[in-house]
This record gives sequence, C-alpha cells and structure tokens, in this order.
Amino acid sequence: MSGMTIGVDIGGTKVAAGLVDAAGRITHKSRVPMVSTGDGAAGLSCVESAIQAIFAEVPTARAAVTGIGICAPGPLDPTTGVILNPPNVQCWRDYPLAAEVERIFAVPARVDNDANAACLAEARWGAGAGYRNVFFAILGTGIGTGIVFEGKIYHGRTGSAAEGGHVTIDYQGPRCGCGKHGCIEAYASGPNIARRTRERLSSGEPSAILQLAGSVDAVRTEHVGEAFRAGDPLATQILTETSHLLTIWLGTIVDILEPDVMVIGGGVAELMSSFFPAMSAGLKEWAINQRAGEIPLVLARYGSDAGIAGAAALCA
Amino acid sequence: MSGMTIGVDIGGTKVAAGLVDAAGRITHKSRVPMVSTGDGAAGLSCVESAIQAIFAEVPTARAAVTGIGICAPGPLDPTTGVILNPPNVQCWRDYPLAAEVERIFAVPARVDNDANAACLAEARWGAGAGYRNVFFAILGTGIGTGIVFEGKIYHGRTGSAAEGGHVTIDYQGPRCGCGKHGCIEAYASGPNIARRTRERLSSGEPSAILQLAGSVDAVRTEHVGEAFRAGDPLATQILTETSHLLTIWLGTIVDILEPDVMVIGGGVAELMSSFFPAMSAGLKEWAINQRAGEIPLVLARYGSDAGIAGAAALCA
Repeated sequence: MSGMTIGVDIGGTKVAAGLVDAAGRITHKSRVPMVSTGDGAAGLSCVESAIQAIFAEVPTARAAVTGIGICAPGPLDPTTGVILNPPNVQCWRDYPLAAEVERIFAVPARVDNDANAACLAEARWGAGAGYRNVFFAILGTGIGTGIVFEGKIYHGRTGSAAEGGHVTIDYQGPRCGCGKHGCIEAYASGPNIARRTRERLSSGEPSAILQLAGSVDAVRTEHVGEAFRAGDPLATQILTETSHLLTIWLGTIVDILEPDVMVIGGGVAELMSSFFPAMSAGLKEWAINQRAGEIPLVLARYGSDAGIAGAAALCA
Repeated sequence: MSGMTIGVDIGGTKVAAGLVDAAGRITHKSRVPMVSTGDGAAGLSCVESAIQAIFAEVPTARAAVTGIGICAPGPLDPTTGVILNPPNVQCWRDYPLAAEVERIFAVPARVDNDANAACLAEARWGAGAGYRNVFFAILGTGIGTGIVFEGKIYHGRTGSAAEGGHVTIDYQGPRCGCGKHGCIEAYASGPNIARRTRERLSSGEPSAILQLAGSVDAVRTEHVGEAFRAGDPLATQILTETSHLLTIWLGTIVDILEPDVMVIGGGVAELMSSFFPAMSAGLKEWAINQRAGEIPLVLARYGSDAGIAGAAALCA
C-alpha cells in the first residue's frame, strides 16, 4: 500500500472521509455527524473522527497516507487553508483548518471548495483525464463549477473564480438565490427545474408528474426524471428546455475558456445526460467558436463521492 | 539600441508596423496598403514593405530587433503561426505567415489575434503591468477580449478562447453579427450603441444628437459622445444603460475568471471611462464575488496603437 491519500468532504451536517488510491479509487469510507456550532475545536474533532475511523478500519493506511485533502464550505482561502466565514458552519471563523489537520496527522493537508476539488479529481482520475484544460460543472441543489488548467485548479484573485453557476444568461430573468438575475442556476439547478415544473402544472397542464408527486407542491426533480423516462410530454418539454438553457450557458463558457473537455456531474447531470449529444450540436448556434461541437461533453466519473475524490485529489 | 521588437498590425486594407523598445514605447511607425486578394505572396510583400520601411528609417534597428510579432485577422493558429481562412484577407488560406516572415528577416516571428496580443501588451507594459491575471477588452466596432494568465496569453483548445464579446447576457436579446443572441457586442459595440440611439430617436425622443448628426440615419457613436459631454439627456441615458449592460457582462467575467485587473481599451472605452467607478460599484449586484469591486477597472495604455504594441509584445 503506497501513494494513498485521504479525502474529507465536510457539509453542514456530516463529514465523509475516504481512503483513495493512486488511481483515484475510493477503497474505504467513513461518515460522522458534523458539529457546526460552538468553537472551532468542536468542528475539528468531527473531521478528526472521520479520518480516525478510516485508520481504525485500515491500520496500514496510517503509514501509507501521504496527504489529507479537505472539501469545506466556502468562503475559504485555498492558499493558506483557512476557512473564512461559511454561513453553514458557524464554528469556524478565520479558522486554520489545514494547519490543524497537519498538526494532528503530521502529513500535508490542503483545503478547497467542492466544485474546484471535484474538477481536479475528474481531471486527474476521471472523465477529464488526459486533457489539458478541464471545465467541470456539478448540477445539483445549486450549480457549482471548477476550472483546471494544466493540472492545477484555477483560483483567480482570491480563490473565488469558477463560479460558473452564476453566469447570467438573461439579465431580465428570474432572481437567483445569489441576488443576481438570470443565472443558469436560477433555471437549471434541481430545485429550479422543480420550480419551473410546478409553475407549468399550476397553470393546469396535464402530466404524470402530478400523480407521481401527489400534489403540485410536492413536485421534486426526481418526479420530473421519472415521468421523463416514462415518456411524459411535459417532463420532456421541461428537460428539453433545460438542455437548451444549459447549451446557451455552455456557449458562453466555450467562448471564454475553450476548454479541452467539459465534464458534468451531480444528480441533475445524470438526468440530463441523454441530452448531451443535442447540447453539443446546439453549441454551433450558441458559441461563436465553430469547433465548439468537437469539445467532449461528458458525464463525470464520480457521483455522490465527488467530494471525497476531489478532496483526495488536492493532495495526490 | 537593444531589446527592440517590431510589431505588425494587419487589417483588411492596411498594414501598420512599429518599432517598440523594451519599455513598450513605440518609437517609429510605418503604414502601407494591404493587398488582401491574389496569392499569398501578395499579402506577404505588404507585410515585408511595412517592416522594411521601419528599417529604412532607423538603419540601426536591423541589428537590434530580436523578434517580429504580427496581429493578423483570424482564424489563425498562434502555435504554428499559420493564418487559416480570414474572411477579410482572402489571399491567405492556410498560409504560414510566421515562417515566411522568419525566412525573410531571420528573426523569430509570432502571430496572434489583435485582442489577445493587445492584452499581452497591456499586461507587460500597460495598465495591466504588475498583475498576474489580466482580462482585457477592446470596445470598438466589435468587442474583442484577451486573457493573460501569469504572463502568457490563454489560448484554449484551438486558439479560440477569450471571445468575451460574444458572452450572451440575454438569450432572448437582439441577434449579434455572429449569429448568437444577446451578446454584449450586440449592445455595447460602437455600431450597436449608435443603433440603439437611432431606435430611440426614431421613436421621436428629442435630443441634441439629431442636430449633431444631421439625420437619424447618420447617427454614429461619436455624436452620442459629443452630446453626452454637452449634457444631453438622451445621450446620458444611452451611455448609462450601456454601462449597466457592461456591468452585467463584467459580472459574468469576474464570476468565471476573477482576474487581478480588468483593462478596457478601444474608442468606446474612452467614451465610457467616466462610468468605470459606477460599473465597479455595480459589480456588487452583478457578481456573486463580494470582492469584485476591488478589482481595478482601468483604461488601456494603448489606444489606436494597440495592434502594433500587442504584436510587438508577442516577441518581447
């Protein structure tokens, strides 16, 4: 056993950790609750427990692990490994998480946000492997993105680059949770696909979605997906429209970055993957780059383990 | 005399060349007509004449020049120095311009597009000097952009990255010359500012612009600028609206790239520069990045000589 890293994925309510080998395989996992209030040490002890659980299960890993990477809620400073002031993890305010983890485990530790880290995992081990410049998007509750240039995460001036979910595709469009208008997230995140579906159902359009969900208010993206797979016309319309909006957005990404590959992950990505060929073809209309359609548009390797794999990639 | 480069700026109707010193000062210039039809050698001889005119004026430059950079109409391949198939320069089809210039003058030659090259000149010698990551936009007949990361032009997969003028800010907006809808160029290029002004005048709004231009059809951006400086309400409205649309666009740029500086050049930039402080402040609303307003938004050093300086920077 050699060249192993540990990836730690911290959320508001849980800490997941994984042991990851040199090929990006997650060989063991642990999960503990996250304490996000109180003092900084309370949150740190959760991280420590998740890592210790791995070592308890795989005692030989202790000596084989060469680094610990951590996906943490932002804002954070990836250069110093300091967590600044995350709204969902109130126990950490200007908290030197990387330094604390290094102190406890005596191996190098790195911290980054989840989409940046997941992009690095895809670039190194996943659907972006072998490409120089990788654009990654995770379509889920929100839309997070990451950019890897020549094997390194692109951070920008303060670590806040690659917030591609907040690209405005219609400045007169619906207000996004971030305060801007017409962000792609305001149309194509899971909750916003569900919102758009509820609006259509409320206007009286018939659909199997209503039977699946029980009521308009109960409609979630999963119901749209299930109805789509059964051929429901409204679900098909909603997802086709979503694919069109995502194409417009990717046109902007291509015209700015012209990446070598575009990797799409997250629960909504799986739902949308049957539209990827149409989206690639549609870039002819929505990118000035006439070779945009040549850029592979592919599903991510890592699904719900993207945070663990991404965190591990930070130190691999 | 040492460390001099020659910058050559090729347009559809003229070739301009300049001798540029190590501090980015253009010490001598030449200009000859461009022959854009016929065979490749016809176009090449124009480039050669423009360069020879510099050497004729400054004989000592011949030995002091260490490289020749060329801004040429795209599409082109900056890696190989081959001009592919520019619509406005029909004499060059897959033409190895850099290699031909190297053969004639026996110094290294490089080729790139004008906005990329101008970005490099600003990053090296101009308003972007001292910053790591530079975003540059030239607002003129169109909107061209360039990106320099750590001293190098970012080209993307095939050299077609940094087409920021074709970022869509409203996918239901006016059709751009490129075929996409709602590109920032479709609102904020010189001709589109004039178009928006003509539309307002046609609907009967009173303005001094009409007296300055003589007729609605004759309105150009210069008239809007002149009326704005004289306090004309419609001109002020048009330019304020333009600044708002540019702010929305820069919000997207910041949320993707988070550059260290944003440098704006071109004729429209001078017109808009009094709005730069308001645009910086407006980024609070149009970028998710809460520190977007800290990013300097500055006028370019190079005006109409941006092509010459940019070309020279390619080899400096």
